[in-house]
Amino acid sequence: MLKTRFRGVRARIAAGACVAMILSLAAISGGAQDTGGISGFAPARVAAERQLEEKLRAIPDAAHAESNLRHLTSEPHMAGTEASHRVAEWLRDQYRSFGFDAEIVTYSAWLPQPREITVELTKPTARKLASPEQPIDVDKDTSDKRVTPAFNIYSPSGEVTAPVVYVNYGTREDYRTLASSGVHVEGKIVLARYGKSYRGIKAKLADEHKAAALILFSDPKDDGSGAGETYPNGPWRPMSGIQRGSIIYTQLYPGDPLTPGVAATPAAKRLAPADAPSLPRIPTIPINAQDASVILENLSGEAVPAEWQGGLPFTYHFGPGGAEVHMKLVMDYQQRPIYDVIAKLHGTSDDEWVVLGNHHDAWVFGAADPGSGTASLLETGRALGELARSGWKPRRTIVICHWDGEEPGIIGSTEWVEANRSELQKKAMAYINTDVGVNGPNFGASANPSLKALLRDAAREVEDPRTGRSVYETWREHAAAFSGEVSGTARQTPATDVSGEPPISALGSGSDYSAFFDHAGIPSMDMGFTGDYGVYHSVYDDFYWMKHFGDPKFTYHPALARLLGTVALRLDEADILPFDFPAYALEIEHVTTDRIRRAVRDEDEQALEPALDAAAKLSISASRASQALQAVSGAPLDPAKASQINHAVAAVEQAFLAPDGLVGRPWFQHVLYAPGSYTGYSSVEEPGVTEALERNDSATLRQEADSLAAALTRASARLDEVARLAQSAKSAAGE
Amino acid sequence: MLKTRFRGVRARIAAGACVAMILSLAAISGGAQDTGGISGFAPARVAAERQLEEKLRAIPDAAHAESNLRHLTSEPHMAGTEASHRVAEWLRDQYRSFGFDAEIVTYSAWLPQPREITVELTKPTARKLASPEQPIDVDKDTSDKRVTPAFNIYSPSGEVTAPVVYVNYGTREDYRTLASSGVHVEGKIVLARYGKSYRGIKAKLADEHKAAALILFSDPKDDGSGAGETYPNGPWRPMSGIQRGSIIYTQLYPGDPLTPGVAATPAAKRLAPADAPSLPRIPTIPINAQDASVILENLSGEAVPAEWQGGLPFTYHFGPGGAEVHMKLVMDYQQRPIYDVIAKLHGTSDDEWVVLGNHHDAWVFGAADPGSGTASLLETGRALGELARSGWKPRRTIVICHWDGEEPGIIGSTEWVEANRSELQKKAMAYINTDVGVNGPNFGASANPSLKALLRDAAREVEDPRTGRSVYETWREHAAAFSGEVSGTARQTPATDVSGEPPISALGSGSDYSAFFDHAGIPSMDMGFTGDYGVYHSVYDDFYWMKHFGDPKFTYHPALARLLGTVALRLDEADILPFDFPAYALEIEHVTTDRIRRAVRDEDEQALEPALDAAAKLSISASRASQALQAVSGAPLDPAKASQINHAVAAVEQAFLAPDGLVGRPWFQHVLYAPGSYTGYSSVEEPGVTEALERNDSATLRQEADSLAAALTRASARLDEVARLAQSAKSAAGE
Repeated sequence: MLKTRFRGVRARIAAGACVAMILSLAAISGGAQDTGGISGFAPARVAAERQLEEKLRAIPDAAHAESNLRHLTSEPHMAGTEASHRVAEWLRDQYRSFGFDAEIVTYSAWLPQPREITVELTKPTARKLASPEQPIDVDKDTSDKRVTPAFNIYSPSGEVTAPVVYVNYGTREDYRTLASSGVHVEGKIVLARYGKSYRGIKAKLADEHKAAALILFSDPKDDGSGAGETYPNGPWRPMSGIQRGSIIYTQLYPGDPLTPGVAATPAAKRLAPADAPSLPRIPTIPINAQDASVILENLSGEAVPAEWQGGLPFTYHFGPGGAEVHMKLVMDYQQRPIYDVIAKLHGTSDDEWVVLGNHHDAWVFGAADPGSGTASLLETGRALGELARSGWKPRRTIVICHWDGEEPGIIGSTEWVEANRSELQKKAMAYINTDVGVNGPNFGASANPSLKALLRDAAREVEDPRTGRSVYETWREHAAAFSGEVSGTARQTPATDVSGEPPISALGSGSDYSAFFDHAGIPSMDMGFTGDYGVYHSVYDDFYWMKHFGDPKFTYHPALARLLGTVALRLDEADILPFDFPAYALEIEHVTTDRIRRAVRDEDEQALEPALDAAAKLSISASRASQALQAVSGAPLDPAKASQINHAVAAVEQAFLAPDGLVGRPWFQHVLYAPGSYTGYSSVEEPGVTEALERNDSATLRQEADSLAAALTRASARLDEVARLAQSAKSAAGE
Repeated sequence: MLKTRFRGVRARIAAGACVAMILSLAAISGGAQDTGGISGFAPARVAAERQLEEKLRAIPDAAHAESNLRHLTSEPHMAGTEASHRVAEWLRDQYRSFGFDAEIVTYSAWLPQPREITVELTKPTARKLASPEQPIDVDKDTSDKRVTPAFNIYSPSGEVTAPVVYVNYGTREDYRTLASSGVHVEGKIVLARYGKSYRGIKAKLADEHKAAALILFSDPKDDGSGAGETYPNGPWRPMSGIQRGSIIYTQLYPGDPLTPGVAATPAAKRLAPADAPSLPRIPTIPINAQDASVILENLSGEAVPAEWQGGLPFTYHFGPGGAEVHMKLVMDYQQRPIYDVIAKLHGTSDDEWVVLGNHHDAWVFGAADPGSGTASLLETGRALGELARSGWKPRRTIVICHWDGEEPGIIGSTEWVEANRSELQKKAMAYINTDVGVNGPNFGASANPSLKALLRDAAREVEDPRTGRSVYETWREHAAAFSGEVSGTARQTPATDVSGEPPISALGSGSDYSAFFDHAGIPSMDMGFTGDYGVYHSVYDDFYWMKHFGDPKFTYHPALARLLGTVALRLDEADILPFDFPAYALEIEHVTTDRIRRAVRDEDEQALEPALDAAAKLSISASRASQALQAVSGAPLDPAKASQINHAVAAVEQAFLAPDGLVGRPWFQHVLYAPGSYTGYSSVEEPGVTEALERNDSATLRQEADSLAAALTRASARLDEVARLAQSAKSAAGE
């Protein structure tokens, strides 16, 4: 009986996907023909839009970008410090000078600063570790006395003396390998190299396996000499370079750990730190490869498998035995201020917002992360300001945000979204993020599927500084040649799409779109130019690095500013928001029918049926909505009707939010995407169902599948409403 | 005209070589048939010799060897210290207990001890280097407080602050590469990795290129992780391991630098240190790979060629630039005592000696170097003592020597040979050396060609502990499978001989046979079992290392004792010394006609002619002598006649000594072999001619070729005298 039913489902789905694909292709090609590559505009308005965009794209320049970055990287400016406040004030003043309505919004977050960090080998011999990053002669910033010792933010204080076990990347799979080799980490200090997963996952897994403490290090194989020449001879991590970073469990919820789901205002009700689920439980500290080599080379026990061997010049061993380490961490936890900068360029309608953002807090100088994005976004802001000064008024309000506290835990954006969630859900058409905006010449992006076409279209309009052809063409060629993961950065480079389009990832986590997308259902995208980058979260991510490796001529910064501006202007000026719902529905069908259905066990098949039905139905609704939107985009519309349609278009995404969130992590409400509970930065598609499947947890699977089906059904209904509104607007326009 | 003459020479030589080869083969096979693999004995005496040897080989055992080594490695015992005196006294007492006539002979050498060693990075940042070797938990000796900081003995005191240039192995070829890349080392600190040449050559070349100082380091690629697992997980050098070592110019003369050619007695006339040619001129210090990595990774400039890249995890650069180092070395130079142990087991004739030796001084604990050889040789001594106690009296006097001061500059043996040169030239039939006697299971040896057959025959009599077959068979198979150089040790593994015999190298330098062979013309050999050995001259060359890697069951130590004893007994008991002159002549002809003659420029050809003639003549004399010796070996001989023959046989080697030595280095008198002036440990054949050829120095070439021709002619005359004595002895014996 199962077989028969199953074939029935497959037949139904295939039919739905096929219809949707045909309609989607028709819609895309139709749109492109009508508007010369600019979607969402009545043909009569395309020329004006193109002219406006070209005017904007002429403004950003290398000199401004470089000067911005030099200012932003002039001192270390960690979140929660007065230096971060100074950056926020400077940014606010910049936007005011551009003609924006800019303000600083302050929150109060639970934030540590390190007071004492001791890491030392005690056996076989006493030797101080936790050595600082070595200053570099040609790069004076690296000897700045204000640099805070490297630490993992949100590590608890603690003191441990224990033998060490090497756990490779510290993933679930790695702990399974250890167990199968008879190596136990209980009571031990585990030594994990960075990579593969978010460090907060490493901390959680170390705790789950009852390790006493965690030491993280950057293996030269991963983002040092194994990748290429090391700083200052090349862009990769030198032996003394340390990756700082947060270990807060953003996989549970980002933002201030004491105020999940609500804004961290002074008056907010707070959890006791001991009760905060996102706070890690075991002492954790990052060290450099030099110090790690001292521990690793002393480890005895079995030699590790080949894929565990890193780039240090000796055979790695699991331990324990051979090396014992003493760690003492004293962290000064306090309520510390977070300074978000919110700058608005008011539009004709203040009810519709296009939001752009990047964080401004940095681990040290933060040239690439986040300064390159900030310097570029500032140029976008300056260009928009100049357009406004020359007489243009945005159709919608453009909101540019520079977040604080991203590094400790995506705090500034999360708190602001939590504070303004319902207003954002009413007004925000989309959120456009950049973070490490430029660390090389290769464009990369992630986005929710309805925004991918818009992003690709915008990339066709901007010239790539290196090739002289469009960013789109360069991106497509590079992606085809280099599909696979780029080391050292959080953004994944997905495999090239079969369609021949350059790939755009799903939104994972690790930057400020998280609260917008995962928690508030605002359509989002993230973009930047990437390259060889081994100085992530180290003192070496500074101006000299950028000037010699990341973007020596500062040509990619203005290119990014042009891209951000082009996307912003299209979203801002569009008659009908150019959201590609059929593409979205197609991805959902692909995940639901091809991936999830194939992975499910026989006994759980039935649980999936409502979701499979809903996904098939969504494809048809998406196609209908798309057709209806195409039909109204050819002619001027009554602004009130258009606004009604656009609000409905933007709000489709919110249909994917489950009111109670994912099982076990209610803050994550989006049923289609979330950072994996055990993967970290990278996105898991249909995360509730997928993770229940992985655990063979039938009860949760049923619950999540129902939640998914309900969300897809809600989205279908909203898309049907979009179609209805569009048809009614078209009728009203007299066609 | 040149062509015609040349063909004439070739024809003449080929004829000589051919005759010699045929005669040589006849001699060898004849000898083997007559005496069952034991050459030099009258057939009637072979059985007794075999019985005696078997009795001797039954005595050495693992327990004694291990106990010897445990005692010898119980404390660091560097030459010139009271600890070295304690070892000498213990050794003397051991031999006395075996029944030897043992004494300590003391010399006074110019020897430094380090008083202050500072090496620190000053740019880009201050960082202390010259870190000590890291103690290892499981190996308590490594945390011994008496370990002297690592240094290069005979470095001058000095203080330098300068940029660093990486010079690869610091060979002549490497400096040419630097020059062709436009990198100059004048006034710089040069950083060279160990390997390829003796470190005293590196020091001399650094000085010749006007470097201000030299830092030596062990690259993990060479004898660390690039070779295999590092200590204590494996036998190779860990990152913190340092190779100490002398940089005295033993290529000019070994021994006390202030008394070249004469014994360093208290009354000896001494050079002023400033005038001593063998003393290095620029401050030199060894560091470990950890410290080297701090310097190397900071070096800027061009990336090095692929063959210069070592095993540290980053791309190496030439420098200068990026790194500046401050070095301050304060050396406490004084006259310090050297304690040789000379132990004699008197024979029936005290006019004929068989000398065996190894040094006893060590850089630190010296388990492999030299303890393994010492522990084994002690077992040989114990075995000989037991044979003597059971009624046997050696035919010749067996002299076992344990030298002091080998590590600083082969001092103890050199001074003793210089003190006793004419007596040795009269009495010593041969010198048998071992040094790093055991650091693995693979037998290796070097010898002058007349002794090679004897050595191979002896190896046929000793069982290899691992294979259960003979050392000879195991050696031959291993050599065939692994021809090439073994890293980390001074002994070369030559390519397998075309004859299918296991290869035996030419005697180079780097151990105590040097004065015997190079300066006094005593036929010599050196042997030991080698293997994976990366702890050379480090604190880790200790008992634990030997017990876990070098010879865990202590089976190779007694095997070496048996080999040394077998060779000694054959030399001691032989009726006619089993020296293979045709083989020697063949090698000389090969070098002279095949190598030298082919390399010579047209204008220098004539200079070679006398040597080519003499070499051809030598082959014929060697064959005749060999035949004559064969003819007398079948029957008992009058002892006085035999003694006369044997003295003549042993003295043939001295014919190869040029009275004035090699041009530019008169201490080296042997015209056939010497350590290369710019290669170090390894031997250069016909060194005077060869090095003059390399320099295109026609004047010296002529002088050296004449010297060579004269030596070969003297040897021919001596061989003719041997033949005459043998024939006359045979006539006298009535056959």
